[in-house]
Amino acid sequence: MDRPVGTGENMTQTMASTKSLESLIEERYSCRGFLPDGIDRTEIEKMIELAERAPSWKNAQSYKIVALTGEKKEALCRDLIERARSGAEPAAEIPYETGYPSSIRRRMMDLAVAFFAQLGIDRKDKEAREKQTLRNFNGFGAPVMLFAFIPAGLREWTILDLGVFFGHLTLVVRSHGYESILQAALAAWPDIVRKHTGVGAEYTLVVGMSIGKADPSEPANHFKSQRAPASEILQIL
Amino acid sequence: MDRPVGTGENMTQTMASTKSLESLIEERYSCRGFLPDGIDRTEIEKMIELAERAPSWKNAQSYKIVALTGEKKEALCRDLIERARSGAEPAAEIPYETGYPSSIRRRMMDLAVAFFAQLGIDRKDKEAREKQTLRNFNGFGAPVMLFAFIPAGLREWTILDLGVFFGHLTLVVRSHGYESILQAALAAWPDIVRKHTGVGAEYTLVVGMSIGKADPSEPANHFKSQRAPASEILQIL
Repeated sequence: MDRPVGTGENMTQTMASTKSLESLIEERYSCRGFLPDGIDRTEIEKMIELAERAPSWKNAQSYKIVALTGEKKEALCRDLIERARSGAEPAAEIPYETGYPSSIRRRMMDLAVAFFAQLGIDRKDKEAREKQTLRNFNGFGAPVMLFAFIPAGLREWTILDLGVFFGHLTLVVRSHGYESILQAALAAWPDIVRKHTGVGAEYTLVVGMSIGKADPSEPANHFKSQRAPASEILQIL
Repeated sequence: MDRPVGTGENMTQTMASTKSLESLIEERYSCRGFLPDGIDRTEIEKMIELAERAPSWKNAQSYKIVALTGEKKEALCRDLIERARSGAEPAAEIPYETGYPSSIRRRMMDLAVAFFAQLGIDRKDKEAREKQTLRNFNGFGAPVMLFAFIPAGLREWTILDLGVFFGHLTLVVRSHGYESILQAALAAWPDIVRKHTGVGAEYTLVVGMSIGKADPSEPANHFKSQRAPASEILQIL
């Protein structure tokens, strides 16, 4: 894949990666519409290698990432979509959480209201909402889908490490000129993911991520979610 | 706190933050020796606010961060050190994990061997190793110590979100010219943390982080941990 090469001290640096961290973070969004353009294998490896520099518990790096592209990704997505359409309940190995306190439920609700308004979808239009939700299972058309697993005997601390890794990866992806979305939905039916990835019971499926070039014509990609004021998150003693 | 102001489109950008993401990630390390220089309240808030742009489950941002500085931090650390010296077993609310597969245990062992070699500590010198471990409970002298909590009813997905947040924060901290270390050790005795932060049972303590200016004279700060080759982590189908 030919791309412009940066100048200055780091000759392997791409044009995109000269963006400041602040811009990368502030302009990031969860992408919900991708162009079909693929990503070079070497570039996927390079992005994962960089994100792997994230700190982890005693440097354990206890994650396994399986990337699917092309027809393999499409076949997996067809099965996920079929399952979702059947009305099956999610059966994630890390059970989806429910007990959110009301202050946090409000943030989730605010997001949903603002998001569907951006898409011109009436919150009461169940069919339109379901159609939008279904797009999760095709990774919103992304050319690359990642599945993240952890060793079966491990749990929270390893999931924390995995989060730190993904916190790096979302930014690395952007600095390479791509966008991403971290998707709990991709972990809804592990049997399908196991069938298509060949990963056995020695690993637990945690979460998935879709990556690719953003489709600028997708209305959802012009949605910018708000954040709680720091005063709701941070207390300095 | 007066700092040089960047030029160009983003006038609030600091000098440090013009570093490329790649450099920020590649040069990052877990800092184990800090200078006493404090960090301005406003700057702590700004760093947390930026890290908060990290994606989270339906934008829940279900984390509570308590920062301690000055005498409040010192008082907490004195209690942690006393407890650690007493030989008490850790009683973290997120239990420390054990069932690591042998391939991962090898990575952890490789780190420990390389780390103690860098410090000139004989692996068989239990006293010297314990003395080094004890430094965790003073945050290696950092002026700022963060404690991260999640609502009591939540668990893995929220911990994943917290990890993504910390994956951002470690880089934000670096782009501000500071270093950090994410410390499971700071979650070892929640009763002490609760006593000094006033956070009640409606939250679970997950992990801590120390932040400050790196002490360049600290040998541990010249230790660079290795990473598993991408082929051990990533499989592309």
